[in-house]
Amino acid sequence: MGLIVQKFGGTSVADSEKIKNVAKAVIKEKLNGNKIVAVVSAMGHTTDNLIKLSKEITHRPQDREMDMLMSTGEIVSMSLLAMAINELGFKAISLTGQQAGIRTENSHLKARILNIDPKRIKKHLNDDYIVIVAGFQGYCDDNEITTLGRGGSDTTAVALAGALKADRCDIYSDVEGVYTTDPRIVKTAQKLEVISYEEMLELARVGANVLHPRSVETAKLYQIPMRVRSSFKLEDLGTLIIGVEEMEFSRPVTGLASDSSQLRIVICDVKDRPGNAGKIFDILANKNISVDMIIQSYARNQKNTNDIAFTISTEDFSKFEEIKEELINAISASDIFIDEDIVKVSIVGAGMIDRPGIAAKMFNILAQKEINIKMISTSEIKISCLIEKKHAQTAVNALAEAFELDGSTIADVKGDLPSL
Amino acid sequence: MGLIVQKFGGTSVADSEKIKNVAKAVIKEKLNGNKIVAVVSAMGHTTDNLIKLSKEITHRPQDREMDMLMSTGEIVSMSLLAMAINELGFKAISLTGQQAGIRTENSHLKARILNIDPKRIKKHLNDDYIVIVAGFQGYCDDNEITTLGRGGSDTTAVALAGALKADRCDIYSDVEGVYTTDPRIVKTAQKLEVISYEEMLELARVGANVLHPRSVETAKLYQIPMRVRSSFKLEDLGTLIIGVEEMEFSRPVTGLASDSSQLRIVICDVKDRPGNAGKIFDILANKNISVDMIIQSYARNQKNTNDIAFTISTEDFSKFEEIKEELINAISASDIFIDEDIVKVSIVGAGMIDRPGIAAKMFNILAQKEINIKMISTSEIKISCLIEKKHAQTAVNALAEAFELDGSTIADVKGDLPSL
Repeated sequence: MGLIVQKFGGTSVADSEKIKNVAKAVIKEKLNGNKIVAVVSAMGHTTDNLIKLSKEITHRPQDREMDMLMSTGEIVSMSLLAMAINELGFKAISLTGQQAGIRTENSHLKARILNIDPKRIKKHLNDDYIVIVAGFQGYCDDNEITTLGRGGSDTTAVALAGALKADRCDIYSDVEGVYTTDPRIVKTAQKLEVISYEEMLELARVGANVLHPRSVETAKLYQIPMRVRSSFKLEDLGTLIIGVEEMEFSRPVTGLASDSSQLRIVICDVKDRPGNAGKIFDILANKNISVDMIIQSYARNQKNTNDIAFTISTEDFSKFEEIKEELINAISASDIFIDEDIVKVSIVGAGMIDRPGIAAKMFNILAQKEINIKMISTSEIKISCLIEKKHAQTAVNALAEAFELDGSTIADVKGDLPSL
Repeated sequence: MGLIVQKFGGTSVADSEKIKNVAKAVIKEKLNGNKIVAVVSAMGHTTDNLIKLSKEITHRPQDREMDMLMSTGEIVSMSLLAMAINELGFKAISLTGQQAGIRTENSHLKARILNIDPKRIKKHLNDDYIVIVAGFQGYCDDNEITTLGRGGSDTTAVALAGALKADRCDIYSDVEGVYTTDPRIVKTAQKLEVISYEEMLELARVGANVLHPRSVETAKLYQIPMRVRSSFKLEDLGTLIIGVEEMEFSRPVTGLASDSSQLRIVICDVKDRPGNAGKIFDILANKNISVDMIIQSYARNQKNTNDIAFTISTEDFSKFEEIKEELINAISASDIFIDEDIVKVSIVGAGMIDRPGIAAKMFNILAQKEINIKMISTSEIKISCLIEKKHAQTAVNALAEAFELDGSTIADVKGDLPSL
């Protein structure tokens, strides 16, 4: 008898009928002889609706009050799922993040999980209950309610799987697995049967919304096998995510993703002096703004100044505006330039580690299509290029074809596609 | 500088604009130099919508999961109110029932408050915060979330006022005060400037939805002056509710109410044997079904059996059906008869204590209108009669006129009317 943590996303619990279907998916694994912990997101657009409501009140809500507000979405869906499972004759109990023992740091909106005390969950599992846990939320000192930020429900599921030493963590959503690239752009994109944590991590980071990178990091840390699968096609096993050491690589590039939810910010004429870059990113970090790509141009002008460019999420833009003046003053920069017309296109593959020339190939393909590259960033298994939005479709199609991600050369996978 | 607990009902916080108005009402009292604790209900029809959602899933939800579900409504409105107050430049913080230290018995849906630890609220008040508290909810052992049942937000407010030794508890809603009778039935019903706890209690119990009886009981216990007032007419002071010893009574009857949300249940042929009535009401109490009027007919038939009749809320009817068989078996009754065609009409007044003949007058008035009385119950300051639904309007009009509650003889009050 195994222990499986399941996670059901917002589209899987979007209405009462879908919640009843999720109840069946849960019971199916229970009848296989497993103990089940099911983590749920808020129903459909609930979180977005709550954010909209808050914006009708204020454009600068307190982070703490936003957490209070948003934590309700998951509580609604978890209690309804518990009722649906009970209705089908199985014992179920729903737990808030606090009741489930999910302790986070003392921070709001994007709190990290510090530890999980699984005592209460274990007790209910031993009493033969299916345990439903609110995703996306935890608690910190003084019983304050915290949320984990976007993708937090995936993180909840994987962290619980780690704390409970689960045999597997299944992430159910409206996509059937992880695809080589965005099927909305490349119609022949292929579903992968297996992918490594590392590759998934890079794909997740660069915009494949299938899984949040934090959840993949956590799964990798605890070596919990994950499955990405559809709650609407229970017979389909989706994509398995496991350690890289268990895999063999036939292709250098496994996946391709594009991300248009970022802004590029260029800080002009930063004095080339030790500590200036540190100051910039300290100020950003204090405001809890995550920075993705960073490039500092080499100081070669007479003023001995650099331009520092970086990308942030469009979500963080209003926070950025609040500290813009502070930034300019802190480092005596001449100006800040904001570029919204960017999309990040990335190729990912653990197989590229031992194969030189992949980056050159990518740049050449973009050049052939006359696409200008605004920024580049790389890791061992990923290459990302920032390009203008209008070129996104052309770039993705050309790269998919060149790196054989469009199904024309991959025979062992099949299916349709996730959203990026 | 005083301490005022304010409570805002669902219609007062029904949308973001109304929440902004409530923020102004809160700040108005704050600017008068008071410390403020504001208790909120769920927005508009939120609670009803959550119940509807649960009914799409199951008709027998677990009480615990219902509490989990319903507790979210107040958390949404309290966090939005905190944001709205902050937006206007005042410090505000919202607290769940648990964070506010509202400890209840280990029971769901209708839990009673056991005690309140006001430490955290006091700390925030001393730090000059306006403290917003979720109405209707508390917590019990194991950090389980409980709700207090209908009218629970009023109870939260008054219990907090008691625990904090507040100077006053203001209940804001869409009604402008307490009226002599239902203005929807008697157009000339009058707003009272002052009423005693005892009278309010009887009026509340018999169906005047202005205040829940539990809140009035609690206010009486702690001797907290209450005001019932409109959140849409802040200049109107509404109705003050104070101790009977501070009042003088010019009329025997202060108020008149009707309540059509009850069912009459008659258990036929209960053996006239000690303990049978106890058994019946034990079974009902174990199922958490509140019983209102109780009548046992005198055993005068050959079988030496009684009929026992009582009324329960229509809300509890499905729970009653679950124990119907158990009831019949426990006392070997011959049958159970259920009568839905009832309305309870009551007159209330502390002034009736020293004036005999009020009951006789009420019965005579109903008889003159050829209205049959199905059951009667009385207290020191209240007389209730159960009649057929079709006679409700006639009865209320006739009684209002006879007891001078229709404004024709009361010159010192004015206004329109609450919902019953």
